[in-house]
Amino acid sequence: MHIEWDEHIGVTATGEGRYAADLTDGWVVGGGLNGGYLLSTIGNALSKVVPGKPDPIAVSAYYLSASVPGPATVSTRVVRDGGSIATLAADLTQGHDSRITVLATYGDLERHAGDVRTTATAPVMPPVEDCVPNTMAPPEIRNIATLMDRFDMRFDPACIGWALGEPSGTGHLQAWFRLNGERDPDPIELLMVVDALPPVTFDLGMPGWAPTLELTAHVRAKPAPGWLQVSHRTSNVAGGMFEEDCEVWDSAGRLVAQSRQLARVPRPI
Amino acid sequence: MHIEWDEHIGVTATGEGRYAADLTDGWVVGGGLNGGYLLSTIGNALSKVVPGKPDPIAVSAYYLSASVPGPATVSTRVVRDGGSIATLAADLTQGHDSRITVLATYGDLERHAGDVRTTATAPVMPPVEDCVPNTMAPPEIRNIATLMDRFDMRFDPACIGWALGEPSGTGHLQAWFRLNGERDPDPIELLMVVDALPPVTFDLGMPGWAPTLELTAHVRAKPAPGWLQVSHRTSNVAGGMFEEDCEVWDSAGRLVAQSRQLARVPRPI
Repeated sequence: MHIEWDEHIGVTATGEGRYAADLTDGWVVGGGLNGGYLLSTIGNALSKVVPGKPDPIAVSAYYLSASVPGPATVSTRVVRDGGSIATLAADLTQGHDSRITVLATYGDLERHAGDVRTTATAPVMPPVEDCVPNTMAPPEIRNIATLMDRFDMRFDPACIGWALGEPSGTGHLQAWFRLNGERDPDPIELLMVVDALPPVTFDLGMPGWAPTLELTAHVRAKPAPGWLQVSHRTSNVAGGMFEEDCEVWDSAGRLVAQSRQLARVPRPI
Repeated sequence: MHIEWDEHIGVTATGEGRYAADLTDGWVVGGGLNGGYLLSTIGNALSKVVPGKPDPIAVSAYYLSASVPGPATVSTRVVRDGGSIATLAADLTQGHDSRITVLATYGDLERHAGDVRTTATAPVMPPVEDCVPNTMAPPEIRNIATLMDRFDMRFDPACIGWALGEPSGTGHLQAWFRLNGERDPDPIELLMVVDALPPVTFDLGMPGWAPTLELTAHVRAKPAPGWLQVSHRTSNVAGGMFEEDCEVWDSAGRLVAQSRQLARVPRPI
């Protein structure tokens, strides 16, 4: 089967640490392209920079302007390469416009298996088949969010009141997630998964697009094949901004990625 | 009264976005200088880069090598300046050695007062006078951690079992914090406060220095005068690394800073 994801985040080396990308209109949301999709594209380029260090461990992205479908350049730089990890930098540009600037630590997650003492607890959710698919979103939403055609997302019914005009007010969303074609997840994909759900502000009765200022993701292990569970929470909506904490758990019950972003609260729609 | 803090983080512009610093031996801990002190020094230089945007809003630091007392250079760069915020970059170097590379969003926190809908709850702790001062640490600890002479830190007795050889195992520390001279806190100081407590791994029975790979701090408001409350938690010790989440609350009961760092678990001492 054709796996569209690998094509969407594909990059071609053009020399001197630069990579050409062709951003797809398949990841449109609100006024731009999904920030997670863009981060995976950058992360894919960074995975090719240092031999033997293909995996993101920590990635910090500062979003400068909204990206648009079409050609883009990822310019990479090795800040420091030594020992088991490398610190890298990247800039995504379109023409003369800077879109995203990134710092990252890359390494080999196979070397990080080791001892696991996770005290965080996996999201408690009904089975996939009892959750609410994103395909139930109304056409007017799907038309401005083509990304919803890219994956199978099943919301925990306990966190979906906002879709019925009854947000819980607690600042919590969670869902099952899997890319089209039942593609099994990998570390680069996780950079997208941490920003794929609707903004957690939906659950506070604040619908609309929430532009990310900064997002840092930690990838803590290679995910096992199968469905992922994704949880978003916020606890500090203040001064026109909010933090959004994300956890991604794999089918083996391991916390494989954690992220936090700082975003602007949505403007009323 | 002489306020040593302002001298310790002081920088002098030397042209073309560069600032000279003289790192003090007053912030030594383990094999280097405290990462929070270094981040405040960098943050102080960045506060001078764009007029009208003196306050850190988001700061991401990647630690490359251990800093040592003595001269250092902070090289800054404006990535994008537009609207109410500016995205900045900085590198701290000593001679030819890169120590820390940073991305940051700066602005004016006075403009971000606005609506506050914080659902996080402030640390519940006994009054300052009933908590355990860091001055009770044994001399062999204080000798390798001169930073403890820089501030008054009072640990919640409920989270101090590790000092008596009885760590709780929950991964939680909390304390009152105030700089020497009862200096009132400001946004630049908060960049240090998020990394001033001992590593949260002390509470897991893993004493020792925990080198930070990456730390991102969000400063959400100007702190009110007086004591700060600082909380550290971890929930995912795995693969030789752990995340440490920090909250800083001011004397008015506002959550003024949140940070997360990814660090290596301490080597046995």
